[in-house]
Amino acid sequence: MDNDIPGIIVGRLPIYLQALEHMHSRGILTTSSSELGEVIGISAAQIRKDLSQFGEFGKQGKGYSIPFLVEQLRNILKVNKIWDVAVIGAGNLGHAIAHYQSFTDHGFRITMIFDNDPQRIGTKIEEFIVQDMQNLVSLIKKSDIKIAMLTVPAAAAQAVTNDLVNAGIKAILNYAPITLAVPDDVHVQSVDPVIYLQKMTYYLE
Amino acid sequence: MDNDIPGIIVGRLPIYLQALEHMHSRGILTTSSSELGEVIGISAAQIRKDLSQFGEFGKQGKGYSIPFLVEQLRNILKVNKIWDVAVIGAGNLGHAIAHYQSFTDHGFRITMIFDNDPQRIGTKIEEFIVQDMQNLVSLIKKSDIKIAMLTVPAAAAQAVTNDLVNAGIKAILNYAPITLAVPDDVHVQSVDPVIYLQKMTYYLE
Repeated sequence: MDNDIPGIIVGRLPIYLQALEHMHSRGILTTSSSELGEVIGISAAQIRKDLSQFGEFGKQGKGYSIPFLVEQLRNILKVNKIWDVAVIGAGNLGHAIAHYQSFTDHGFRITMIFDNDPQRIGTKIEEFIVQDMQNLVSLIKKSDIKIAMLTVPAAAAQAVTNDLVNAGIKAILNYAPITLAVPDDVHVQSVDPVIYLQKMTYYLE
Repeated sequence: MDNDIPGIIVGRLPIYLQALEHMHSRGILTTSSSELGEVIGISAAQIRKDLSQFGEFGKQGKGYSIPFLVEQLRNILKVNKIWDVAVIGAGNLGHAIAHYQSFTDHGFRITMIFDNDPQRIGTKIEEFIVQDMQNLVSLIKKSDIKIAMLTVPAAAAQAVTNDLVNAGIKAILNYAPITLAVPDDVHVQSVDPVIYLQKMTYYLE
């Protein structure tokens, strides 16, 4: 794995993978960079250039084998295994995430949920008992969890993040609308609906 | 407005705007493409190239005035006004979205929430009464709403989307993990936590 590949290129691989998995689920077995590009709105040249950073996946004039490219992208993104994930915050968003059906097919499995509200601690969401946030560091340290989804209020997000970092978490999916400070070896991705909405208003009248 | 600007460039503008607004909120008044690039992980050259598609916003060697660039980006993205938004689905995710504090500062205001569950219809979320989905087309048609956030289950998402299109909605933020079919003049952005998680596993050991 070459960590010098720009993050913006790495960031497009899951989009390619998703589109290819979708084609595959519809029984399509081969595609071209231009067909894939049509689906996701990225130029064929960009797709070829991005993929060439990681290897040789298609044959000139013959396109890509979808099952092969899916497998290769899963290997590159390391989702050819299942990652355990902790959800921090058992509010509406934490519930929505815990009920989300689409994780296990794509490399992820929620295995712990935490909250600090005594009303929520000990309750059940799907098959999980909500754990006390006070035990977050010790429970995550004892586990093999490297990934957390953070759904606590913005005001609490940085303090919880510090605990997650202390517990050994290396990747945080942040739903709180603030920028988190983390060490260099911890990755953060923020999910902000505003960014998506603003991508569309550009086109509206 | 030039609709020939590639969507991938338009899609980066909200990220620039968010970072600039964040700097501005911390009292910073000027920046450079390299400083901005550091913050968001995009190259300075890319940022300059992207912005040059829309005009001349900085002075050679002097960088960008943040308040000016924020205003220009808000104009370009048309979030120098407030857009009314309908939320479809009053489950956990619909609740989380209705409680989300960050919309109004960024150009959006939720004005209607719909559900088809008799248990939910008529209940209150924040200041909104949950409306019956059966009235969706007529109520949205009567309103000035062009944007919807879709939080219904995947199995219902396409049927509801058809209603939204009939009602005149032109932009859909889709939280359901399926690809929606819409006419060419309707924009869809999908929020999928899997995409974000897979962007990070690449870097994990």
